[in-house]
Order: sequence, then structure tokens, then C-alpha cells
Amino acid sequence: MVDIIAKKRDGAALTKEEIHTFIKGFTDGEIPDYQASALCMAILFKGMNKEEIAILTDEMEHSGGTIDLSGIKGTVVDKHSTGGVGDKTSLAVGPLVAACGAKCAKMSGRGLGHTGGTLDKLEAIPGFRIGLTEKEFIDQVNRIGLCIIGQTAAVDPADKKLYALRDVTATVESIPLIASSIMSKKLASGSDAILLDVKFGAGAFMKTEERALELAKTMVDIGCLLGRDTRAVLTDMDQPLGLAVGNALEVKEAIHTLNGKGPADFVELCISSGAIMLEQAKIVDNEEDGRKLIKKAIDDRSGLAKLVEMVEAQGGDSSYILHPEKFPLAANIIPIKAKQSGYIARIDPLAIGLASMKLGGGREKMDDIIDYAAGVMLTHKVGDKVSEGEVLAYAHTNKNDVMDALNQIDGAFVISKKEVSIPPVVHNYLSGK
Amino acid sequence: MVDIIAKKRDGAALTKEEIHTFIKGFTDGEIPDYQASALCMAILFKGMNKEEIAILTDEMEHSGGTIDLSGIKGTVVDKHSTGGVGDKTSLAVGPLVAACGAKCAKMSGRGLGHTGGTLDKLEAIPGFRIGLTEKEFIDQVNRIGLCIIGQTAAVDPADKKLYALRDVTATVESIPLIASSIMSKKLASGSDAILLDVKFGAGAFMKTEERALELAKTMVDIGCLLGRDTRAVLTDMDQPLGLAVGNALEVKEAIHTLNGKGPADFVELCISSGAIMLEQAKIVDNEEDGRKLIKKAIDDRSGLAKLVEMVEAQGGDSSYILHPEKFPLAANIIPIKAKQSGYIARIDPLAIGLASMKLGGGREKMDDIIDYAAGVMLTHKVGDKVSEGEVLAYAHTNKNDVMDALNQIDGAFVISKKEVSIPPVVHNYLSGK
Repeated sequence: MVDIIAKKRDGAALTKEEIHTFIKGFTDGEIPDYQASALCMAILFKGMNKEEIAILTDEMEHSGGTIDLSGIKGTVVDKHSTGGVGDKTSLAVGPLVAACGAKCAKMSGRGLGHTGGTLDKLEAIPGFRIGLTEKEFIDQVNRIGLCIIGQTAAVDPADKKLYALRDVTATVESIPLIASSIMSKKLASGSDAILLDVKFGAGAFMKTEERALELAKTMVDIGCLLGRDTRAVLTDMDQPLGLAVGNALEVKEAIHTLNGKGPADFVELCISSGAIMLEQAKIVDNEEDGRKLIKKAIDDRSGLAKLVEMVEAQGGDSSYILHPEKFPLAANIIPIKAKQSGYIARIDPLAIGLASMKLGGGREKMDDIIDYAAGVMLTHKVGDKVSEGEVLAYAHTNKNDVMDALNQIDGAFVISKKEVSIPPVVHNYLSGK
Repeated sequence: MVDIIAKKRDGAALTKEEIHTFIKGFTDGEIPDYQASALCMAILFKGMNKEEIAILTDEMEHSGGTIDLSGIKGTVVDKHSTGGVGDKTSLAVGPLVAACGAKCAKMSGRGLGHTGGTLDKLEAIPGFRIGLTEKEFIDQVNRIGLCIIGQTAAVDPADKKLYALRDVTATVESIPLIASSIMSKKLASGSDAILLDVKFGAGAFMKTEERALELAKTMVDIGCLLGRDTRAVLTDMDQPLGLAVGNALEVKEAIHTLNGKGPADFVELCISSGAIMLEQAKIVDNEEDGRKLIKKAIDDRSGLAKLVEMVEAQGGDSSYILHPEKFPLAANIIPIKAKQSGYIARIDPLAIGLASMKLGGGREKMDDIIDYAAGVMLTHKVGDKVSEGEVLAYAHTNKNDVMDALNQIDGAFVISKKEVSIPPVVHNYLSGK
């Protein structure tokens, strides 16, 4: 193992055998953490080539059990977002593509820090079960075309252990390690096709479009090398996605969107992503046809009906989907008002995400308890014209001492005298071809 | 600690407080190995500035007890070699400078791999004790001006722990980490003045003069910043030093040298190093006067008398020093002969050092037992003219199956048809001013 570390330290490419030795030994506990962290730091500085990353991903994917989705008829599509603020896309796009006939089998994660997680949002729906067995998972996808669950412990143990180590050794921010971590989980989950939503900007893990593009290309390359139809969209995370940030608030926004009343940026992301997923699922031949089908599934409420079906199948109370006003509101709903008139030039998503966390809507540590009702509801987006004293956002909370969060929301807004153009939500698309 | 690792990973300089947190926490076991190894790898890639290295050295020096030599009258000088093949300098230069009136208090180490260690060589003298108490150490230096012992466990625990970790995480080869490791031990040992012998070439840790110069400058800067008269010589390790490699063989060569019969390169190194040490000890005003004094101490045998005095003071049988033929010879002494006539262009010191180890004279692992009689005796040096069939070296061993070692010795020699000039032993001198 010392020789493997030294080889990477000196910039050489590791062989399949060396990467296997590392991942197997580390997962089994034979290679100690201090050697693994030194290797991660060397990888951070010296990088890995396409083949090395594909091998690393493959080794991690097979470090534990993999999910066999071959029992599902048709092409199974999955979607993965690198995480952001207000990202409730899976809650809307999953039902939409399933309503159009695609099979969508998805394993999701939880939120931490300023970012939310799909599982937490789903658990805001009373009764919803995220812990299905593999058989229940497959049966449900076969029956209704859609299932979203939590990752089972047996999948990708190498990633779980390695990510925990990287988190405490400042070795998270390495593209080969990020790419192999995401892709090994996705590949182990068994889908035939994967759409990656790589976000960039102040609220995303990747701060610049350049880094996001590098990560996206790397992941698309890995996926294609390992035989899956892998594509990526590069999307904006320089302001929160949509208007709602916080678990129940975001579920409600997804429901509104499936009712045809979603905010423009979020609707556009659902249509773009959904159209690509339909192409990947071979339901349509091109993106344009896909867009039409997704729009139709919004207009005729078949997406909403699919969400109701999934919630019922997973033990949730679907009356909340049909009557979203049933979600309990927080005790305190506090307006944040504009201090000057002008155009909104910036809504810092990191500040909004952290404020939502402090209001009770997120976790600072992995074992913190979430208040599903808490969060931030924006009333405006970048480009909107506002007048002094007009409400910019509402803080939803059951806590009392939240001055810090309110100041953070206030500070997230930058108002300009000059007109500001509306930024696009989708910046780039890598088709993997 | 994650923030400290991230800061260094991103190339920023660490503060005194951050370095203190690391060294104290790591020594106490509060900072886990996996964070320490990640930080070491980040330091390897991003380096440290002069102030950071001085702070790191200072923190390591004070991670345990330090030796208080203030009870010794006069300037106490110490010498440290970065290690090589056939390096018995301390055995000769210590007695020489002490014979000239300097106080020399030295803590030495053991050999590993192809390099030898002063302690092992001293222990080849029957009865010699390297484990004195601090009081015995100080008393002996006060009484006879010279004492060489092993490092006590209480000195520099941070270095012991960190070095062991670096050894298994491919983070040894970082100049800030090497420099702070060497200097923290030297500073903790309490001498007022330190002469560093930084070796470079195939048998040294630093392969090139450039790297050796960088290490030497770094260590001289640290020592001076921390208030000690620190100087360095850059010396050749592209062939073994002198003719003898192996513990008792080297002790005998040191004795011959003190009897005025040493090999030219080794004699020159003793005179150069000794002269600088005498200047550091304020016995002489300049190196030239120092050289004269050292030569006189060889000619009048006062250096030899001092070695006898030290051996007796430390419980050794001094009759071996006066009658070196008493050292037992190995059972097998095997000649290695020249396969062609010509000039010796190269004697690979790494090959000779490893061969000596295989013959029984060194350790492959730290707990291997050494055969003091084993080793390699060269009969020629680079630049010498030899005829086909002439003996180039003798392998001394008590083992029987040593073909591998004999081939290695044979392969170490390169004989050229063209005349070869004799390389200098001392290449550079950094006075620290």
C-alpha cells in the first residue's frame, strides 16, 4: 500500500490490481485509515485518468451488494442531483416521466448543512416509507413505474467508509473521488440509464461552471465506459431553485408544479430533465418530443396522479398530495422586506440554505432532527422588480430566537438600481455521445 | 483539524496556533493518524515557508522533555549526518574535536536498510554502553569533553510518532517534514552549535546536490531562527565513504584514521568537519586554524587517546581500540575481483550498503539482529586504476548462501577504459551567516 501511495504521489496511473487492493483492503479494514487518507490527498493533488476513475468506480460499485433491476421490464432510468438549495426536482420529475411510461427506480439521500435531501422531503408526507425491501422496490417499479427509497446499507460500503474519511481529512474536493463516489452508488443501484444534474454556483458543491463541467464530463465518461447510458445537465445554483426551501414547503411546491402552477425556473428544469430521461427510456426519439410529453403530463395532471399513486404505494397519506393545505404550517411566519426599491440582482442560495437549516428545516449534524414545516418561502426571484417595503421572503419556523437566520435571509438579497436579466436554469447538456 | 488540513491543501501558511494544535493533539492521540497523514501529504505537495518550518520544529522539540546541557561549561557542539554508506565520521571526528578542547555531546541513532548507525558501530566494541542517564551524559561531557549515547524515549515523542506514520504513508520525502524531524531532535538534545553533514548521491536519502542544498539551507535557517549556531556541509555519497562498510570494520577504520592511516576521502571529511566544529566551539577563529588543530590531534594521537577515554568512560573494553586486530573476523572473507582492466568510474553505494546488510551487517527490519563482523571492505575507490583479476573488495560474512550479495558487490563497480578523476568529498559549506 505504501508503494501505491508513493506511485500516485509521484503522478503515475494506478493499475486495476492496485486500485482493487486499495478498495478491497480498505473496505475489509485491512488497509488502515491513515494510508487511505494519504492516498486520497495524493489523488486530490495528482488526479486520475479516465480509466483509473472507471476502475475505481467499478471496484467501489462491487465492494458490496448491487441491486439487480433486470426483473423490471423496459429501460430503467435514474436521476441524480449533486445537491443544492430548494432542489425538489425528483418529487416532480419522477412522477412526470413515470406518467409518460418510463420506469424510474431511484435511491435517494438525506440533507446535510445547507442542502436538502429527497428522503427528508418525502418523509414530510405522513406515513411515507422510504425503507422498502429490494423485492418491494422492484415490484413497485414494475407495477406503477416509480419508486423512491433510501439506499440500503449493503450497497457500496466502500463509498460510505471512504466518504466519511474524506469528510474529516479535507479530501472531499477531488473530482476523481467525487465522481467515483456518486457513480459507484448510482451504478450499484442498477439503473440502465442515468441523468446527472450537476449544479454550480454559490449554493452548489461546484462553485464554477468550469469545475461543474469537468465533474459532469468525468461522470458521463465513467458511466459510458461502464456500459450505462449516462448524460448530464449543468444547471444554475446561484439562486435557490424555485421559491420554496424546506421540506414540506418544497413538497407543496412540487405538488403545485404538477398542478401547472410551478415557478418558471423549476418548471423548465423539470421539463428539460424529464425530456432527456424519456429519450433515455426510449419513450421518445428526441428531446423536443420529450418536452411535449412532459408538458402534457403536467397539463392533464397525470404526473400528479402518479405522485398520488407512489405515495399510496409507499404507505403515505395521499390526501396531503390532493390537499397540500393539510401540511401543518410553522407557528411563526416572518416576512423579510426590501430595504430599497430596484431589481433583485442576487439571492445567495448558501445563505438561504443555511437560514432554512437554522429555522429548523435542516441538519447541522447527521443526527439532528428536522422540523418539516420550517424553511424559507421566497416571493421573488433574480430579475424581479421590487419596491421598498415589499416582502422578499417569509421565514417559516417553530423556533423563537431566529434573529440570526432572519438577518441571513435579509443579507442574501442584493437589490440593484439597474435592470437585471433573468438567468437561465439549464446551462449545458452532455449527451454522452 | 479539517480546516487546518484544508488550509494547507489550498497552499496557505499555517499559524503558530494551528501547528501547535496539530503537534500537541497528534502527540496526545487526540488527532487521529488519518488526519495527520492527510496533512503530511498536503505539506508534501504544498510545502511550508521558513517560519512555518521553524514553528513546526519548535513544537516538535517541545513535544516531550528536552535535554538541559547548561551544566556543561563552554559551547557544546553536535554533529548530525543525514546518513549514508560507510559513514563512521562521528567515531573519529568526535574524539578529534574533544581532543582539541571542544565539548561534544551527541545523541545518535541506529542503522536501517542500506545505511548504518553510530550506535550499532559503538556497540561492536565489547561492553560499550549507549544507555546513560542524562546526569551521566552531562558529567562525562564535563569530565572528558565527549559522550555519544542513544536518544532517550522522552525526547521528541512527536517526531517518533510522526516519522512512523510518514514511513507507512509515503510522506517521508518532504523537505519541511525531513528538516523539522532532524532539527527538532537535534534542538531537543540541547547543543549550542550543530554541524549538519547533508549527504547526496546514490547512497544518500537526497539523490541530487540540488535537493541536498535545499534541505541543508532549510535546516540551517531553522536552527539559526531558533537561536543555535547551525552550519552544514554538503558531502558526497555517490560512493561509500572510506573503504569499510559494516560495524566492526568501520570502527577499525575510524581507529586507523586516528592512527594517521585513514583513507583520503574520510580523512578529508574528518578534518573539514572537525575544523568547522572547532570554530563553532570558539576554540579557533577560522577554519584554517581548525584544520591545523585537527591534523595535530591525528598526528600526536590525542584523538585516539580521547576515543580510548570515551570507550572506558562508557564501560567498553578499550584494548580493542589499542589493538583493533582483537575485533573478531567473519568466518568467510570472499574476494570480489575486477573482470577487466581500467579505471574505477563508479562504486554504487546503495548496492554496497544493501550487500553489507545481506551479509549480516545491517537490518532489513528494525528488530533484526546485526552481525558486527559482517560487511564489505573495499580495496579501491573511484579513480583508482585496476587490472583484470585484481581484488576490488572483500565480502565479510558468517553466512553461507550469499551469492546475491556477492553479485550485488560485483555489479556495484563500473570500470572505464578512460581515466577517471577523483571526486571531491566536500562539495559545499553553509555557514549559516
